[in-house]
Amino acid sequence: MKHGPLALTLGDPAGIGPEIIVKAWSQLKDSGPPFVVVGDYQSLASASVAGAGIVQRVTAPDQAARVFASAIPVLDMPLKAPVVAGQPTPAAAPSVVQWIETAVGLALSGAVSGLVTAPIAKAPLYEAGFKFPGHTEFLGELTEAEKYDGARGPVMMLAAPGLRTTLVTVHEPIHRVPSLLTVEKIVNAGLITAQALRRDFGIAQPRVAVAGLNPHAGEGGGIGREEHDIIEPAVRALRDLGVAATGPHPADSLFPAEMRERYDAAVCMYHDQALIPVKMLDIWSGVNVTLGLPIVRTSPDHGTAFDIAGRGLARADSLVAAIRMAEEIVGRRNA
Amino acid sequence: MKHGPLALTLGDPAGIGPEIIVKAWSQLKDSGPPFVVVGDYQSLASASVAGAGIVQRVTAPDQAARVFASAIPVLDMPLKAPVVAGQPTPAAAPSVVQWIETAVGLALSGAVSGLVTAPIAKAPLYEAGFKFPGHTEFLGELTEAEKYDGARGPVMMLAAPGLRTTLVTVHEPIHRVPSLLTVEKIVNAGLITAQALRRDFGIAQPRVAVAGLNPHAGEGGGIGREEHDIIEPAVRALRDLGVAATGPHPADSLFPAEMRERYDAAVCMYHDQALIPVKMLDIWSGVNVTLGLPIVRTSPDHGTAFDIAGRGLARADSLVAAIRMAEEIVGRRNA
Repeated sequence: MKHGPLALTLGDPAGIGPEIIVKAWSQLKDSGPPFVVVGDYQSLASASVAGAGIVQRVTAPDQAARVFASAIPVLDMPLKAPVVAGQPTPAAAPSVVQWIETAVGLALSGAVSGLVTAPIAKAPLYEAGFKFPGHTEFLGELTEAEKYDGARGPVMMLAAPGLRTTLVTVHEPIHRVPSLLTVEKIVNAGLITAQALRRDFGIAQPRVAVAGLNPHAGEGGGIGREEHDIIEPAVRALRDLGVAATGPHPADSLFPAEMRERYDAAVCMYHDQALIPVKMLDIWSGVNVTLGLPIVRTSPDHGTAFDIAGRGLARADSLVAAIRMAEEIVGRRNA
Repeated sequence: MKHGPLALTLGDPAGIGPEIIVKAWSQLKDSGPPFVVVGDYQSLASASVAGAGIVQRVTAPDQAARVFASAIPVLDMPLKAPVVAGQPTPAAAPSVVQWIETAVGLALSGAVSGLVTAPIAKAPLYEAGFKFPGHTEFLGELTEAEKYDGARGPVMMLAAPGLRTTLVTVHEPIHRVPSLLTVEKIVNAGLITAQALRRDFGIAQPRVAVAGLNPHAGEGGGIGREEHDIIEPAVRALRDLGVAATGPHPADSLFPAEMRERYDAAVCMYHDQALIPVKMLDIWSGVNVTLGLPIVRTSPDHGTAFDIAGRGLARADSLVAAIRMAEEIVGRRNA
């Protein structure tokens, strides 16, 4: 089935978003997949060494495919005031939020096939009143009313070649992590992970490895009780629900190559448990995928990098990988 | 300067210790470094497919070098009752402890040049009244009265090709880690790390990277306060003390190859932060080194592996790497 282009949100216009979008387009303009940017025309034109010549305003996503080989199609939603690369400002926040809301609306309506988001920074958004820890939670809220057949996320997945990890807790201080873990949350993360492996990654019989929290996965209760009290019951519950789940596994033994062959995704208890191995395997092209939503959404697994924004140094590898992965998922969901 | 052999403690006789010692000897008998085993003669003989023919009792370490090319020299301190591979028993615990105490005594006296310990298991030792979390802390206690010129450990280091990590907390449940971190402990770990990099690893100007605790190293206080309150002051104090320390670094960005080139060791806040990257780089031959002690001590970075003990499956890579690293450190300390 023929489907629409992907939507790319511009992200923080003071970050590397505009620059990596231009670079990603250069790599993809001949092969696709085509995308339409939702954001500020001028920011993109400024980020291009070729200037405005390679950016073209469109009025609807269905014009993107025709434009894409020669220019970056953009649904222009201009900033109210100019933004300088490397200088984030809360003044841009309403536009940044509006671009995301618009792109989600287009995805829910079917006008675009999925969503790839360039990085946003929390600080300027928070100053302007934004209340979500990040894209993932905001997208959960924006799509909440939409029907979805399956276990409901959002759950964050990080994907690198040879490793997928999903997170039970995300941007939480370590001291809060143990009290945030519940059987229900781990079961939900495991179910959504297994469902996404089938639906979005084409793995018919997905194997899910669940990490422990403590050193040596608690060593039989000698180094922490969460494995016994929370994670083991969650793994049993997942098995009862038909998920090929194993664990809790000692996290330090879970990510060498020999172990990675034994599962299709690892459900991790906290941020760095999931991110250290993914970034070790591929610092440049890891992809963040939001699972369990009625829309397809990926993003690069890095931030706005204000320190190098506007200097031509940013690498588009992760964004390109995110665009390709979104297209693959769209293809599988529509198959 | 000519120095004595290394001492190898047998470790838990029901684990893979005897088997990997026999295998390590096969790999090292021609090239050295020579070692003398402190433990039960019969366990070694039983672990060898060649039988007792390749194990030879000696009465003092200085006989080891002469024997080593043709047999494994052992200071025989027999078990009181036979032990079956794969079946740990607290009955063996007094011997296991005595072997360690004897080997430490030999190292303190200079009769052996350093110590390499085969794995022990906590459960059978605890049943017999052992009170230490592991070898590292026990060795700290056994060597406490000995003079030592420098910042005093023990601090645990894990070393793989391309990465060394040291640990501020070791076998602690995650929920305890934040409250265990203090400026003093991090400074001490950093000082001992820098000192060991110079003294034991021959790095004249060591660079020490200090990891954060929380996601994104706390993101300016938005995801936890420990970086601001504890780790940053510790890094400043280390710099004031002349250590080329950096950080706190977001842990997920600290271990890709590009970052590893920028430091000689990473000081980590908790077990899996240090162990996930080391085991990803080298699951088979990571080495555990105890820093800041008056004696040299290394060990393999794996456990007793009761599940495969006595079946001929265990790999000696990590023990061989530990023996070689101990010999290198001895050479540098004696240079």
